[in-house]
Amino acid sequence: MQQIKYLLNDSDIPRQWYNILPDLPAGMLPPLHPATKQPVGPDDLAPLFPMGLIEQEVSPQRWIDIPPEVLDILVRWRPSPLIRAVALEKALGTPAKIFYKYEGVSPAGSHKPNTSIPQVYYNKKEGVKRIATETGAGQWGSALSLACNFFGVEAKVYMVKISYQQKPYRRVMMETWGGSVTPSPSNETNAGRKILAENPNSTGSLGIAISEAVEDAASRADTKYALGSVLNHVLLHQTIIGLEAKKQMKIAGVDPDVVIGCCGGGSNFYGLSAPFIQDKINGAKVDIVGCEPASCPTLTRGHFHYDFGDSVGMTPLLPMHTLGHTFMPPSIHAGGLRYHGMAPIVSEVLRQKLMRAEAFNQIECFQAALTFARCEGIIPAPESSHAIRGAINEALKAKEEGKEKNILFLLSGHGHFDMSAYEAFLANNLGDFELPQGEIDRAWNAIKDFPEAKEF
Amino acid sequence: MQQIKYLLNDSDIPRQWYNILPDLPAGMLPPLHPATKQPVGPDDLAPLFPMGLIEQEVSPQRWIDIPPEVLDILVRWRPSPLIRAVALEKALGTPAKIFYKYEGVSPAGSHKPNTSIPQVYYNKKEGVKRIATETGAGQWGSALSLACNFFGVEAKVYMVKISYQQKPYRRVMMETWGGSVTPSPSNETNAGRKILAENPNSTGSLGIAISEAVEDAASRADTKYALGSVLNHVLLHQTIIGLEAKKQMKIAGVDPDVVIGCCGGGSNFYGLSAPFIQDKINGAKVDIVGCEPASCPTLTRGHFHYDFGDSVGMTPLLPMHTLGHTFMPPSIHAGGLRYHGMAPIVSEVLRQKLMRAEAFNQIECFQAALTFARCEGIIPAPESSHAIRGAINEALKAKEEGKEKNILFLLSGHGHFDMSAYEAFLANNLGDFELPQGEIDRAWNAIKDFPEAKEF
Repeated sequence: MQQIKYLLNDSDIPRQWYNILPDLPAGMLPPLHPATKQPVGPDDLAPLFPMGLIEQEVSPQRWIDIPPEVLDILVRWRPSPLIRAVALEKALGTPAKIFYKYEGVSPAGSHKPNTSIPQVYYNKKEGVKRIATETGAGQWGSALSLACNFFGVEAKVYMVKISYQQKPYRRVMMETWGGSVTPSPSNETNAGRKILAENPNSTGSLGIAISEAVEDAASRADTKYALGSVLNHVLLHQTIIGLEAKKQMKIAGVDPDVVIGCCGGGSNFYGLSAPFIQDKINGAKVDIVGCEPASCPTLTRGHFHYDFGDSVGMTPLLPMHTLGHTFMPPSIHAGGLRYHGMAPIVSEVLRQKLMRAEAFNQIECFQAALTFARCEGIIPAPESSHAIRGAINEALKAKEEGKEKNILFLLSGHGHFDMSAYEAFLANNLGDFELPQGEIDRAWNAIKDFPEAKEF
Repeated sequence: MQQIKYLLNDSDIPRQWYNILPDLPAGMLPPLHPATKQPVGPDDLAPLFPMGLIEQEVSPQRWIDIPPEVLDILVRWRPSPLIRAVALEKALGTPAKIFYKYEGVSPAGSHKPNTSIPQVYYNKKEGVKRIATETGAGQWGSALSLACNFFGVEAKVYMVKISYQQKPYRRVMMETWGGSVTPSPSNETNAGRKILAENPNSTGSLGIAISEAVEDAASRADTKYALGSVLNHVLLHQTIIGLEAKKQMKIAGVDPDVVIGCCGGGSNFYGLSAPFIQDKINGAKVDIVGCEPASCPTLTRGHFHYDFGDSVGMTPLLPMHTLGHTFMPPSIHAGGLRYHGMAPIVSEVLRQKLMRAEAFNQIECFQAALTFARCEGIIPAPESSHAIRGAINEALKAKEEGKEKNILFLLSGHGHFDMSAYEAFLANNLGDFELPQGEIDRAWNAIKDFPEAKEF
């Protein structure tokens, strides 16, 4: 019997996160205050985030200790397994070895709890009683509800109304963990009331939900805000994935030639690849590939520029790859990848040529997901299917070239709450979306007078 | 950091199943042909099952090799984790240690693939091209579709029509793995057509679906039938759970004082407890507890008697604890526990006083499930909540008595496809069911003239 799973014991869980900031060859640009265009300081962020997280946002330390209270919870399902996809390799007839790190073993079903647990921990430590956030498809809201439940903090989730109506089971999952879920736009905030006054039938958007959550947090002394991706501290927390994967690949006795993840806000892709990017900075030959939807091609068709992190324009200006905050991506099923921007760290990694990016259409991703499900058993989240598409393409290239190659990708979550997407795919009711250059140009024109992202 | 997970490596996976038949002190009674009332022979079963499984059904060997082709697949997610429920212990304030073996890590989300994989393997080996089965809530149909997919065998699943309509995502899961799902009653069998002629609006029942699947298999040379519980070979395959758990408890350095599982057909309960029952036969002191729904109290209010395995009366007569095959359990959410009978092996284990049984109401089980989800994170399947209720009760008893006690229970699956049940529970829309003695008496009267289950 062939060994296909590479497990670590509880005692092998990483004790520190890896912070790339001190290692990035060309450094990083600061976020800017939208009014003053000056770098944002800790005080600007204090109404929304606890100081423990703000410090991590700008820390110059390469290694940051993971608090024991956080490890005590993560260890209930971490280290997550690294699995060799032997059946997929065989089906593809490739000489490549394909490994995947599987984050669907968390109770919420994705990598998101890796950051929701420490985020709530630091909030709790500073006396925060309540955390407000937004959720679209529901992955992040679930992860935050789970974490709040563990630490006895109240979770308030503004869920995009159309998702609230169409994905009741994600809502119930949050409520099972004690989270309070409100369809957005709601009557509970000025932002929500304004939208409803204009359009009582609004089904909401992530931009509106962010506005409501931020307003909620900013207007209540007992409440902070939490974000599930994009920010430096969020990406930091996800590095536990890659640190585990490195140990596991070592046990498997192979160095990855290619490391692949899907890119929405960038946190899962970065979580897996960060330690391998560090290797690359230090001279290793490793191909780092971010896979994004062709219908929201932030890395492949966006600009590196200052832009708002949200759709409404309430956040600091972030230096990032962006399509423009007014860009409205088509309604693909990979809801977690429908983001106009990209984490500033990932954007810098691309700009500094430490990674490359590929864009895939929806149907070719679901074809890859189906192949994976039938070979390996696990039904992937639609987001993760982009990484699978990337990995399969690499494996087929290796076959063409007759090259042995070691491919590592991140399966960021399972698709148990996305079966309606599979239903549509199996019934041939799934579409690809032509993204006209005109729409890309329109959204870019709306921000091109924002500060340029050049040396400050 | 406390160790809470006890993992085994791929190479530690059990290589043999444990067969209790040669160890049962008072032996076992044979199934009877309903017409002749004589013991059923291999030839009677051959139209429905491959010989490899029929041999296992009556094997006198204590240890039966697991084929390498089966291990190669099971090892993708097995050995499954054994986890100490430290947060639950703390919440209960109990001196007891609570361990759970978690079967939700399989792609289908439950223990069912432990038997669907070998069942399809033995069918494939004997040239079977197609397997027909029934499914109610969908757990078994999912597991069979998964296994058929791996071995390239066609899966035909008759799914109770009301479930087909209310649980579309379970259906999509089966289809994702290539299974063909037909709402039952259907126009594809005589049994289905007969029901539809009488009642075109019939929403089906498990009994009808079994009839359709058995007729399908019996009438086609290329097709066999597969059952997800009850039969000896099914229970045999599930012993891999307990064999792993024994190794893991040894690593944890504790012997269980109590071993607990939920009981529907009996296979998951038996899978965990079999090796501990063997210990008990050999003199060990261990309390083995089966937990069943009070609304379908086969072990606690049924009789040990010969009865049909299905509701319609097509199977051999099985010697088992039964409420009578015409008993119609109320519509509790734990669909997998709504079975009028109990596996003959488990029934014998109870009759020979090697285990005891407890019955719980639906609401107290969901309360236990919610407590578990909020402490440990994982959202349990409604079926598994009965084992959790049993474990929590034992832990509270240990607290009252001030006793350190080691409790082991089986978390047979996750509840990702049962969130509507949690929705009802959280909204206080879940009911308990009074089961009138009159209904129990009626169903018992209908079978009491069947052969008595005494020495043959």
